[in-house]
Amino acid sequence: MNLAEAVLAGERLALARLLTQVENDTPDGRMALDTLFAHTGRAVLVGITGAPGTGKSTLVNQLARCIRHPADGSLPRKVGIVAVDPSSPFTGGALLGDRVRMRDLAGDPGVFIRSMASRGALGGLARTTAEVVQVLDAAGFDLILIETVGVGQDEVDIARLAHTTLVVEAPGLGDDIQAIKAGILEIADILVVNKADQAGAENTERALRAMLEMGASRWGYGAEQSEGEPWQTPVIRTIATQGEGIAELATEITRHAAYLRASGEWQRREDERLRIELDLLVQERLVAHWRSQLKAEQYQEVLEALKKRNLSPFKAVERLME
Amino acid sequence: MNLAEAVLAGERLALARLLTQVENDTPDGRMALDTLFAHTGRAVLVGITGAPGTGKSTLVNQLARCIRHPADGSLPRKVGIVAVDPSSPFTGGALLGDRVRMRDLAGDPGVFIRSMASRGALGGLARTTAEVVQVLDAAGFDLILIETVGVGQDEVDIARLAHTTLVVEAPGLGDDIQAIKAGILEIADILVVNKADQAGAENTERALRAMLEMGASRWGYGAEQSEGEPWQTPVIRTIATQGEGIAELATEITRHAAYLRASGEWQRREDERLRIELDLLVQERLVAHWRSQLKAEQYQEVLEALKKRNLSPFKAVERLME
Repeated sequence: MNLAEAVLAGERLALARLLTQVENDTPDGRMALDTLFAHTGRAVLVGITGAPGTGKSTLVNQLARCIRHPADGSLPRKVGIVAVDPSSPFTGGALLGDRVRMRDLAGDPGVFIRSMASRGALGGLARTTAEVVQVLDAAGFDLILIETVGVGQDEVDIARLAHTTLVVEAPGLGDDIQAIKAGILEIADILVVNKADQAGAENTERALRAMLEMGASRWGYGAEQSEGEPWQTPVIRTIATQGEGIAELATEITRHAAYLRASGEWQRREDERLRIELDLLVQERLVAHWRSQLKAEQYQEVLEALKKRNLSPFKAVERLME
Repeated sequence: MNLAEAVLAGERLALARLLTQVENDTPDGRMALDTLFAHTGRAVLVGITGAPGTGKSTLVNQLARCIRHPADGSLPRKVGIVAVDPSSPFTGGALLGDRVRMRDLAGDPGVFIRSMASRGALGGLARTTAEVVQVLDAAGFDLILIETVGVGQDEVDIARLAHTTLVVEAPGLGDDIQAIKAGILEIADILVVNKADQAGAENTERALRAMLEMGASRWGYGAEQSEGEPWQTPVIRTIATQGEGIAELATEITRHAAYLRASGEWQRREDERLRIELDLLVQERLVAHWRSQLKAEQYQEVLEALKKRNLSPFKAVERLME
């Protein structure tokens, strides 16, 4: 039994091994991805993004528990968690948070947690995350929670990967003019005000609602493809540390998935996702091919001329492309 | 007089116009960049990064004022501010914060503020920011403050652009396990605890100092190229709203620039920066060339097979590259 088959058979060790292969972009990893691809497309991908300090990790943790132990007596679904850590491009280390969380969900065979370190490659993180998600999808995880920190291009790229994007805010952060970014609101399908027991939670919620009303909501984009009523981005209050509001949040996620399917938006997001992945792969392949043809001395020579300002970057590229 | 000449002559309107051309990647913009490149390499580039809510924008504002009105009677230097807004990839809009700030520094011909919107292109923001910075450099701005929000790959890429990187923290955020990321500390040349009058400032400072001592400091990386004593990342307390600690911060920035030059690290960072810019340009050019050769129907056909899961992404790329 090869790695892909073992993953399809539900072997956790094989899964962990394959994810490492995928992260390292090995030939074996690529071969397995090739095999697994036909088994993808079933999982619901949920992106959870927000600034540090919003209690996002605790929220993800509680959400996973809630899905594993449904209050309404429905069958528990399998949950994958992918924590995207934009840690060092130099050391590539991932951090504590993950291990702290592990303890809580450990021992549940219906949960798999994977922490990713940014490799520093442009676009590399988005591509690798997409592949890790594909493997978990093929391995039979019903819901995949993709957690990202910060508010940046990464978040936007990873949001494009998800069917449903949660943006987490917390009191005190939301007051700042910088905290409520038009961009981050536009990618939000569900807004969460976590730490709702802290002072200022009402202000944060009010500010978010005002922004939602004011702004061209995200349905300015893509609205023409959607049928029926547009999605009204809900604002949910949670106190993740106490598990409050989590069941409501889980319900909204389910409701959003239903909306996506009914409106045709699901398919549109799937298509977009595959197109982006294809483009990223093409880009990588082109660069790799070009680099393999290039003589190291020629590159050094051009780089030296660039450093001395004898050659502009555009002229340097032209010389390299000859 | 063409646009590049007007910029070199110090015309603000021409500068604003050229930056728009550069952001839109027009042929005129590229031509001007080509001309201006020989005039670059003089400015000190300072990156200021940190999570929303840390008061980063106020800090940048105060820093610019401090540089324009030096307390020690030295000559004021010209300051460029580049605010990198990871706003919507869909609408591309930039936000209020910038305009609020504008009011404070408005009317000073020695200050130029530019707000950037992410265009959603992978790697595009880092490249465009590099070009905007080059134009300001050629236009004679001595110090260029590059402000980024969030903690992500963007920040790492933009930090690589800067000579000196400030990481701004604030009390309350720093307590969170997620807030103190190994990655962000590693890119920090100077750590700032802003809002130092708020409860918990001492804890934040202590946590940062502990991380600095504990962690392989950033000089694990690149240390072999540096000569002499390694840089000891200082932790500076500020209350930006009241201008406190700003002069001290400005002094540290100057001290770091001197350190970079003395250690040879300045040249190393310059080289790294140019190499990255060259690689980004090559990548773009390769993709553009490939796209121009590709038949739209062929791409659609492959994309459809991909959507139906009849073709894996790797196989799809192979077919497109044939």
